[in-house]
Amino acid sequence: MASVRAHALAGIPDVRAGDDLAALIAEAAGDELRDGQVVVVAHKVVSKAEGAIVDLRTVRPSARAHELAGGHAGEDRRSGDLSGEPPRFAPAKDPRVVQVVLDQSAEIVRAARDVLICRTHHGFVCANAGVDASNATGADTVVTLPRDPEASARGLRARLRELTGVTVAVLVTDSFGRAWRHGQCDVALGCAGMVALDDWRGRVDANGLALRATWLAVADAAAATADLARAKDSGEPVVVIDGLERFVTAEDGPGAAALLRPLEEDLFR
Amino acid sequence: MASVRAHALAGIPDVRAGDDLAALIAEAAGDELRDGQVVVVAHKVVSKAEGAIVDLRTVRPSARAHELAGGHAGEDRRSGDLSGEPPRFAPAKDPRVVQVVLDQSAEIVRAARDVLICRTHHGFVCANAGVDASNATGADTVVTLPRDPEASARGLRARLRELTGVTVAVLVTDSFGRAWRHGQCDVALGCAGMVALDDWRGRVDANGLALRATWLAVADAAAATADLARAKDSGEPVVVIDGLERFVTAEDGPGAAALLRPLEEDLFR
Repeated sequence: MASVRAHALAGIPDVRAGDDLAALIAEAAGDELRDGQVVVVAHKVVSKAEGAIVDLRTVRPSARAHELAGGHAGEDRRSGDLSGEPPRFAPAKDPRVVQVVLDQSAEIVRAARDVLICRTHHGFVCANAGVDASNATGADTVVTLPRDPEASARGLRARLRELTGVTVAVLVTDSFGRAWRHGQCDVALGCAGMVALDDWRGRVDANGLALRATWLAVADAAAATADLARAKDSGEPVVVIDGLERFVTAEDGPGAAALLRPLEEDLFR
Repeated sequence: MASVRAHALAGIPDVRAGDDLAALIAEAAGDELRDGQVVVVAHKVVSKAEGAIVDLRTVRPSARAHELAGGHAGEDRRSGDLSGEPPRFAPAKDPRVVQVVLDQSAEIVRAARDVLICRTHHGFVCANAGVDASNATGADTVVTLPRDPEASARGLRARLRELTGVTVAVLVTDSFGRAWRHGQCDVALGCAGMVALDDWRGRVDANGLALRATWLAVADAAAATADLARAKDSGEPVVVIDGLERFVTAEDGPGAAALLRPLEEDLFR
């Protein structure tokens, strides 16, 4: 019976800048990697391995960063989060963090109601441009998104093949909020060797009717699946999925860029 | 090793109004249903069983329906979808279909660029208010969302327990587009017996740092996982997921309503 199965790899150690992440994954996987599996890697370990970490002590906030952080001046955001109704997206009250967010952003889409929704230089629309202070390497550092998550995915794929002889697909993921729904779902920032978007538009269904809007974000669904296979505090950044072989390709392919909605299609302009 | 596994049930027949859908599911599942599984049901079979089908020959389009459909007058939408760059959300060119969309909507969020983004009476924001002409029962009918998908999920759960003695969680799902990303992902419209939103906000990570925006849309991730376990044209509307027992509850619980972003938090007003 066809099925999809996802399990987290145990034994990935704390990742540091310069680490050979693919080697850590290969070691944790032992002999269980197989052709056609999808290896889903939380971006944070990719960012750490690539040194995408900012020391806040080196950041000089601009006037705009101070202004955007200003709404939160005097609040204790952390204790505020621990009681009552926390904000829907975590805002940054530290002007230095806001400056990092600005540095990572091509555009601030919305700065209102305790929210900084940004379009990153990659084209991702997400809270705080993906800048994250949790699970960072220290109190005065933040982790940013990888500079080029597609290249990260391709690099991990190639190195895993080199180390193990196995051809998997690789996704690099993060948890994003949604415009119209509560909660976060993991999505693919980078993708190598997998069809990210399965386009059924124009095909017909079992009754011969056109499937007009069936356009599946396969890589995002795989990212969401992977997130279910780990506990958020378990330190399990890598999940292996079986059963998606039909979406795995020999070539690295166009990657997760297919999932980006171009500016000219933005429904809110 | 902990893992998440999803597989589609074979043998669900074509569903018709008045069918005992839970009985069809129980029969297709045979003896494989277990306490703590999540049974994910594509809304279309729920809608069909509940008779949420509109005969377009009974619909009299209003002036507004004609106006909204007007942008498409004279176009052959179907052939347009088969060649070149199709629209991102399937618009309805038939004024009768537009009228059904209006009937299902509390509000048209955007009607531009070949898109009708609606807020349904339930509070879902989606293209065409979830009205779907594909896989329908005939050329002159459309399927709408269930009137109360939460009640549908609770009813299926109770009936499955009655028929099999097993306590599963039930999700009723549909494929929604996203504001900022291409492609569709399945989401939960109705949820019974499962934590839809796993709230880690305020908890701390392994380093003692607050996880400030970690707020997982578990039911949506499960819906996306289920969608990966079936081929879109395989007629497999029901998927069973193992490995999510930690989110399954004895009570039906607050359902998928937890995933709705209230109007006052809408980021685009």
